[in-house]
Amino acid sequence: MTESQLLEHHFDRLFPLDRSLTGNGVRQSLDILKTWIETLKTYEIPAQTSVFDWIVPHEWNVAHAHITTPDGNKICDFKQNNLHLLGYSTAYEGQLTLDQLKPHLHTLPTQPNAIPYITSYYKQRWGFCLTHDDYLKLPQKGLYTVSIDATHDPKGSLTYADAIIEGKTDQEILISTYICHPSMANNELSGILVASMLYQRLKTLPETPFYTYRFVFVPETIGSIVYLSKHGEHLKQKLEGGLVATCVGLNAPFTYKKSKQANANIDLVAAHILKHKAKDNHSVIDFFPQGSDERQYCSPGFNLPVGSLMRTMYWIYPEYHTSLDNKSIIDFEAMVQTVDMYQNICKAMELNQKYINLCPFGEPMLSKRNLMTDLSTKNKQDQHFKNMVWILSYSDGNCSLLDIAEKQNICILDYQDALRDLKNNQLIQ
Amino acid sequence: MTESQLLEHHFDRLFPLDRSLTGNGVRQSLDILKTWIETLKTYEIPAQTSVFDWIVPHEWNVAHAHITTPDGNKICDFKQNNLHLLGYSTAYEGQLTLDQLKPHLHTLPTQPNAIPYITSYYKQRWGFCLTHDDYLKLPQKGLYTVSIDATHDPKGSLTYADAIIEGKTDQEILISTYICHPSMANNELSGILVASMLYQRLKTLPETPFYTYRFVFVPETIGSIVYLSKHGEHLKQKLEGGLVATCVGLNAPFTYKKSKQANANIDLVAAHILKHKAKDNHSVIDFFPQGSDERQYCSPGFNLPVGSLMRTMYWIYPEYHTSLDNKSIIDFEAMVQTVDMYQNICKAMELNQKYINLCPFGEPMLSKRNLMTDLSTKNKQDQHFKNMVWILSYSDGNCSLLDIAEKQNICILDYQDALRDLKNNQLIQ
Amino acid sequence: MTESQLLEHHFDRLFPLDRSLTGNGVRQSLDILKTWIETLKTYEIPAQTSVFDWIVPHEWNVAHAHITTPDGNKICDFKQNNLHLLGYSTAYEGQLTLDQLKPHLHTLPTQPNAIPYITSYYKQRWGFCLTHDDYLKLPQKGLYTVSIDATHDPKGSLTYADAIIEGKTDQEILISTYICHPSMANNELSGILVASMLYQRLKTLPETPFYTYRFVFVPETIGSIVYLSKHGEHLKQKLEGGLVATCVGLNAPFTYKKSKQANANIDLVAAHILKHKAKDNHSVIDFFPQGSDERQYCSPGFNLPVGSLMRTMYWIYPEYHTSLDNKSIIDFEAMVQTVDMYQNICKAMELNQKYINLCPFGEPMLSKRNLMTDLSTKNKQDQHFKNMVWILSYSDGNCSLLDIAEKQNICILDYQDALRDLKNNQLIQ
Repeated sequence: MTESQLLEHHFDRLFPLDRSLTGNGVRQSLDILKTWIETLKTYEIPAQTSVFDWIVPHEWNVAHAHITTPDGNKICDFKQNNLHLLGYSTAYEGQLTLDQLKPHLHTLPTQPNAIPYITSYYKQRWGFCLTHDDYLKLPQKGLYTVSIDATHDPKGSLTYADAIIEGKTDQEILISTYICHPSMANNELSGILVASMLYQRLKTLPETPFYTYRFVFVPETIGSIVYLSKHGEHLKQKLEGGLVATCVGLNAPFTYKKSKQANANIDLVAAHILKHKAKDNHSVIDFFPQGSDERQYCSPGFNLPVGSLMRTMYWIYPEYHTSLDNKSIIDFEAMVQTVDMYQNICKAMELNQKYINLCPFGEPMLSKRNLMTDLSTKNKQDQHFKNMVWILSYSDGNCSLLDIAEKQNICILDYQDALRDLKNNQLIQ
Repeated sequence: MTESQLLEHHFDRLFPLDRSLTGNGVRQSLDILKTWIETLKTYEIPAQTSVFDWIVPHEWNVAHAHITTPDGNKICDFKQNNLHLLGYSTAYEGQLTLDQLKPHLHTLPTQPNAIPYITSYYKQRWGFCLTHDDYLKLPQKGLYTVSIDATHDPKGSLTYADAIIEGKTDQEILISTYICHPSMANNELSGILVASMLYQRLKTLPETPFYTYRFVFVPETIGSIVYLSKHGEHLKQKLEGGLVATCVGLNAPFTYKKSKQANANIDLVAAHILKHKAKDNHSVIDFFPQGSDERQYCSPGFNLPVGSLMRTMYWIYPEYHTSLDNKSIIDFEAMVQTVDMYQNICKAMELNQKYINLCPFGEPMLSKRNLMTDLSTKNKQDQHFKNMVWILSYSDGNCSLLDIAEKQNICILDYQDALRDLKNNQLIQ
Repeated sequence: MTESQLLEHHFDRLFPLDRSLTGNGVRQSLDILKTWIETLKTYEIPAQTSVFDWIVPHEWNVAHAHITTPDGNKICDFKQNNLHLLGYSTAYEGQLTLDQLKPHLHTLPTQPNAIPYITSYYKQRWGFCLTHDDYLKLPQKGLYTVSIDATHDPKGSLTYADAIIEGKTDQEILISTYICHPSMANNELSGILVASMLYQRLKTLPETPFYTYRFVFVPETIGSIVYLSKHGEHLKQKLEGGLVATCVGLNAPFTYKKSKQANANIDLVAAHILKHKAKDNHSVIDFFPQGSDERQYCSPGFNLPVGSLMRTMYWIYPEYHTSLDNKSIIDFEAMVQTVDMYQNICKAMELNQKYINLCPFGEPMLSKRNLMTDLSTKNKQDQHFKNMVWILSYSDGNCSLLDIAEKQNICILDYQDALRDLKNNQLIQ
């Protein structure tokens, strides 16, 4: 199975499940991921727990939900598409006229063939979402039968998960994605798939990575707030950089949204890698306090160096938060390239240290180490020699390898051979 | 009476008076201002007082001054236009030929219909100014009778004034203008009028302003030096920002000249307000050590954060320092807009604090405070919500409200509702 | 003799000598320079001495070197052109077929009429360089007789030199050039000539210069490393700025290569002087760790503020490192202009102090010192007055004169009259 086939395989298993802030759909999803991420651990935090300024909501589960029209058709069936039921809808059984029903129906007149994704987490109400086309066809007369069998359990819990790959140091890289969105593909199943495949790749590297990697799977907002309540102080000590993985499944230009720090290591590295690996076909945008879980990681009490690497950003692509965000818009090959880009950034983070030239008084004599051609002609030395000379000249303990790469205008990943030769000759540490 | 009518009313009373560095014309002008600025206080500093590197000049008063031509015409009559007499001219009585008179006559050949404004404060001489057109018509033959009845009193004094509006804090905003220019309209009666109307507006606000406001009316250069000798050390402790009001009477683009600090609060705020309120129709220029009293406020011994907000700058407009700078070029409606801009800057200075998010770990839960819509759809939240979220995200004690407004790219004045709601909900301080 | 004639006179004496890292050609060259630079001191450092990571090479001297073709022609004669012999070639006597000889022959097929300049300092081999045109005409048959009478003396030494002009302070300006290149004109005899003439000019100034000037003549790389081993710690304490003089003999735009510090005084001053004195006809480029001896001066263990002022840079001009880099491409008038530019930079370095306004509270009263016109008209004050006012306003001890010149947008050299008047009036120190 190729990587893209593997992604599709997991996609097909995960897509139909009814994920929300809480509930069994989340647990089933995480169980599937455990078949892929062997070290994935799941946690339950009781409903009604106070977390910073928030309270964990009641656990929501849905047995069934649908409407029967006056002429006997079953519509808005949650089992057909879990977007039909308003997120966190309360239970309801009853008969209503169309006029009575209408305040509970949500459509998108501007995208009449799309079921909108709508939630009401913190205000109790019931409701359904349907396409505007279907809405217009609803019979005017007669009674509609509504049946929502849903529970809001104050004794339930919120489920989340993480997985750790131990590195040579306890400084960490965070990859965070969210598991609360029901059947939508790009936002958000793609982030879960990309994070999982990145985990698998890093886990199977021949050499232990330099950083410790933390993969976090949480419901958006409340989940990352819960996670920060558990691990926020630890992350303030140990986090070198992090990325929120979201909207990474389209074959579209990369978008990197900076952390609030704006010039954290992860920001500089991500911008650098995109410049060299995605060329003109990407954009780097400033932090703004809306979007996904970077809002929480970057909140003033934590201000962690966490950005977000996306393809097309949420809000921008027309299928966003509708039933049109489905498998038909996903490109699994592009998703593999997204994993490549995440891995390149991780690799660049690892390379980007401040090295020390151990032979700093004048240039080291490279000729006696057979590190340069022994005949001096008017032709310039080769790229490998240049790279070594640049690293040596700037490795004074103040300059990071990324600074050097930016000065020399090459990709930091291209320094790997030079670093190896310089280390092997005891010229840098 | 509208504001523009009020400005014109005071203009008409003040314009004809003979203001200079010293003298009764200054006193009469300040007496008129006292009818408008109830708390205006005037001060006298004796001639010959040493002030830093300077000496207060003798008090200069003029009873009359004119020339009688050989054919009996009275010309260059100080009573007709006080620009006719060279500023600080000595007294003189005598009869001269035209050739003898010529070294004492000053004209502007490049603006032949303008009486130039010329002074000789620190070298004793007598002289008259007239249009070049009139100069060319002077009879060649016969004797001219010169009569200048002027006194330079070493026991006189220099007059200046200030008015204070007490704020909630003793940190100050300074508005400084100058009262030494005789009958010219834009430079400088406009600054006096704008400062006075701004005083009146701030004085009558329903709420006590945050800052204490200091309005200063001094003769240019020597007056601000005298003022700094009295209050310079106080201002070094307390001044948050200041503006020199000069050349503010034309219907022309705004010009903000930065303080020498260049990135003082007042510089950032003024540039921000002009960007949002004057759009493309303004310019922000660097400090240069010529111009008006910002030279003194920004001198190395004080280096106060004092810029200058003008419409068209001195030197630039052709009527500058001539009799053509008169009521005909003034636009009183534009002058009201100038007052608006000054007041906007003051308001922005007051808003521009570093707030502290009191709920900094993750986002505060705005839904439980009814500060956001309770249904989450794909449509973005409204501007008010956005503004609150931006303030919360960046209010870590390092970021000023202006920094946040610049990042969000909105006008700082638009944050007033969000600040109110966040404060009322104890979310920021 | 004009300056350009003097340069040409010395050029003609120095050009034919066989300079290399070591040897008598270097000694003869320095003996000639001693007739010009009276205080030039030469030093010998024994071969095989360890210097940082390097070892001083054996002293190399050549008695003769040539090839006799099968038909009896003497070619590649070192006496005709010392570029014919591979730099640091070992001795050899023997007869070879053309095929046997070929691995020892070096040509430049892309410049078929040029003898390339090639060295093999640190790998023992013998060889000749010739034009590709001549190479193609070599007879295929018969035996070639090779005769190289060269010595590599482990008891010899490496020769270098310096000359000091004592200034008012022991802070130093360094001018460094290199003496290891054989018969090439621009790279590198021009640097030696420019440095020598600059020495002569500074030595004969009417007034002792502010800085102490150090002129260094060393073989490239190993020579500057030797020099740093002797004087590096001193230079870390005392060096205010330095310039490597190389490739300064063409009538071509100036190129300033910054020090690795990038914004050292010398970098700012050189860029400023070029902007004002060379206008559009110059470029300022960032440091890169290849090139000439700035590589050693800027190595991490020293990181001295040493840039390089060139005309066309090495590598760029086609005659570089070939026999085509000869007198025909040199412009001695342009070389005089190069000396002018070096001297302007030195002068600007001396002017560029942080002055202190001794009368900092308000403006000083310039009128009482007759430093301004005594009649105030609408015409602006003259340039001299402006310059004084700018210096006074910004001389608070934080702002260098160069900062002021950049703000006022004039050349720092134009401040000399203002500085004199302000100093004479005890207004600055």
